[in-house]
Amino acid sequence: MPVGTVASVKSLTSDQLRQIDPEIILCNTYHLMLRPGSELIGKIGGLHRFMDWDRPILTDSGGFQVFSLANTRKITEEGVEFRSHLDGSKHFLSPERSIEIQEQLGVDIAMAFDECTPYPATRDEAEKSMALTHRWAKRSLDARRGESALFGIVQGGTFADLRRRSVEEISSLPFEGLAIGGLSVGEPKEEMLRVLEDTVPLLPADRPRYLMGVGTPEDLVEGVAAGVDMFDCVMPTRNARNGTLFTSEGKVSIKNARFRDDPRPLDPECGCPTCRSVSRAYLRHLFVSGEMASASYNTIHNLWFYVDLMRRIRQAVESNSFGAFRESFLSRNLTDEALSEPALGSTAGGA
Amino acid sequence: MPVGTVASVKSLTSDQLRQIDPEIILCNTYHLMLRPGSELIGKIGGLHRFMDWDRPILTDSGGFQVFSLANTRKITEEGVEFRSHLDGSKHFLSPERSIEIQEQLGVDIAMAFDECTPYPATRDEAEKSMALTHRWAKRSLDARRGESALFGIVQGGTFADLRRRSVEEISSLPFEGLAIGGLSVGEPKEEMLRVLEDTVPLLPADRPRYLMGVGTPEDLVEGVAAGVDMFDCVMPTRNARNGTLFTSEGKVSIKNARFRDDPRPLDPECGCPTCRSVSRAYLRHLFVSGEMASASYNTIHNLWFYVDLMRRIRQAVESNSFGAFRESFLSRNLTDEALSEPALGSTAGGA
Repeated sequence: MPVGTVASVKSLTSDQLRQIDPEIILCNTYHLMLRPGSELIGKIGGLHRFMDWDRPILTDSGGFQVFSLANTRKITEEGVEFRSHLDGSKHFLSPERSIEIQEQLGVDIAMAFDECTPYPATRDEAEKSMALTHRWAKRSLDARRGESALFGIVQGGTFADLRRRSVEEISSLPFEGLAIGGLSVGEPKEEMLRVLEDTVPLLPADRPRYLMGVGTPEDLVEGVAAGVDMFDCVMPTRNARNGTLFTSEGKVSIKNARFRDDPRPLDPECGCPTCRSVSRAYLRHLFVSGEMASASYNTIHNLWFYVDLMRRIRQAVESNSFGAFRESFLSRNLTDEALSEPALGSTAGGA
Repeated sequence: MPVGTVASVKSLTSDQLRQIDPEIILCNTYHLMLRPGSELIGKIGGLHRFMDWDRPILTDSGGFQVFSLANTRKITEEGVEFRSHLDGSKHFLSPERSIEIQEQLGVDIAMAFDECTPYPATRDEAEKSMALTHRWAKRSLDARRGESALFGIVQGGTFADLRRRSVEEISSLPFEGLAIGGLSVGEPKEEMLRVLEDTVPLLPADRPRYLMGVGTPEDLVEGVAAGVDMFDCVMPTRNARNGTLFTSEGKVSIKNARFRDDPRPLDPECGCPTCRSVSRAYLRHLFVSGEMASASYNTIHNLWFYVDLMRRIRQAVESNSFGAFRESFLSRNLTDEALSEPALGSTAGGA
C-alpha cells in the first residue's frame, strides 16, 4: 500500500497514482483528524471522493503516530490524550473515537486502536502493553457502527510466547483481517524476521495478514515467505523525494555525478512512465536543481517498482514458483554501485 | 507558451504537460547554460529529448536574465560578462554565444540577443540601447549555423518614434518572426497598451508577432486585439504555486477559508483534469498542508485556463467574432470575491 498520509500520496495527483495501479492505499487517521478533520471529509462525501480515489483505502488507527509524540501524550486505560504537532491543541484518541473517525472517513478497512509496544521493552512491559491492546481490540469491535472492515493487531514485542498469546486472543475476535504491529520500530532485522517466522504461521489462513510499516523490497519478499499478504511503507515515496531510487540492480542515488550525462532510462528493465519518458541525466538534473517534478518522476518510479514487485510475487505464488523467485531475488548481487558502468560514449566533459 | 525555465514546467511531468495540450513552450537559455549546460543537453540528444517534449520549444536569448543581475554583470559592445547566481562563476554571453547555445539545445525557435531597455529610461538611454540591440540583431543572424528559426526583437522603450525605427530596422532583417521586448518591465499598464498600439500594427503581417513576458488573461486579449500572435509568462505557473487560481469568475486565493468545506470543482465551467477530479475543499487542504501535489493540481488548472483562453481567442478570430469576444471578456464583472457564494449545504462547522 502506497502511503497517502494527509489524503495525498506525496507529489502525485490521483491520475498519476492510477497509472501506477496499486490495488489499495493507506492514509493516516492521526493527520486527517487534525487537518482537515474527519467530519469535514465525511460531510463532503468521504475520503474516496475527497482525494479522487475509488479503489480501497485502509487507515491506521492513529495510535502509532500519537505514541511517537513521546513528550506531549498521556496514555490511560481510556485512551490517549495528546497535543497536535501542528498547533499544540489538545486532542483525545480512544478505540471508540478512532473507529468513529475512520468510519467518518468512509474507508474500506479500518484498524483497531492498539498500543504499539516500543523497542526495546522488558517482558513485563511488553505483556502489559499487549494486554491493553487486547482490551482496546474488543472496544474497537464494540464501537463499530458502519460498513468498514476492521482488522485487529497482534502485539507482544519480541517475545515468542507473548506473540502466540496475542495471536490467539486477536484471532478469536471477529476481525476481518489480522495485522502484525510493533515491528520495524528499531529492532535488528534478524529479530524482526524471527518474530515474523514465530508469529505469522499461527495466524488463521482464512483472513488477510498485514505486516504494518514494512519495508524494503527484500522485507516484502521475506514477509510473503513467512505468509504475509499486505504491507505498507513510506520507504518508496520518502526515498523518492530524497533521490534514492530502487532498480532491478539495487538502490541508487540519482544525484550521483556518474549519471550526469547518462542518456539511458533509470532502469532499462522498468516499464514505468518515468523510465519510458526521461533519462538518468534528466532525473539527476531535476534533483540537483531542486525542481518539484523531481519528486513526481522519482515517486512514480519507486511506487511502480514496489507495485510491480508485489505483482511478480503474486504471479510466482499462483504458479507455485515463489520459492525459486525468492531465492533468485535475495541472491541478486546488489551493491551501492548499481548502474555504475559508464554510458556508451559518455565522457567527463560538458558545460 | 508555458514557461519551463530549467527544462521543466515547474511541478509537472511531461505527461501532465501533454494533457494540457499547449502548442509550444518556452525555456530559459540563461538557466540551462549554467545547469546542466547546453553541451550536455546537446550531447544526449537535445532539449526535446532531454525533457521529453516533442512539440515546439522556444528559448529566450538569456539577455533578459543577465541584465537583471544588476550588480554582477558588465555590458560592452561585445556582449555581457556576468556571474552565475548559482555559484558566482564568471560567464559571458554575446549574440554569437547565445545563438550557439540555443542551437546546441536544438530548439525550434531561438531569440536574437538583445538589450532589454529598462524602465524608466531617458530618450537618449533608450535610443543608445536600441542601437546596441540592432547591432546585436545582425550579429545574431550572422551567427546562425543550424536549423532553428530565429526571431528578432524590437526595442525602443516607451518612445513611439524609437519603436517605429526599431520595427523598421528589425523587420528589414531576415528573421522568421518578430518580438516586442522591453514591456511588462515596470511601466504602467496604460503605457504598455499605448506602446503596443503604436508598435504592433507596424510589424509585417506575414511573420509571427511575439509579445515577450506578458501577461494577465486581460493582457492576452488586449495583445491579440493589437495584433499579437504569441505570448509567454510565468504568471499562470507562479500564481499556481502561490495558490492563486484563474477562473471564469476571476482570480481566487485557494487558501481562503470560504473554500474549507466547499465540495464543488474549482471552476464548474472548466474541463481541466483538476476540476474534473477534485473539490475546492481538497485543493485548499493540499495548499494549507503544504503538500507538493497542491502545486501540480493548481498548475494544471492555471495552464489549462491560459491555453484554453488562447484556443477560444483563435476560434473567435477565425469566426470573425473576436471583437465581441473581447468586449464580453473585458467587461466580465470580476472581483476578488469571485466564487464567493456559499456552497449548498455548507456551514462553518467541522473538526
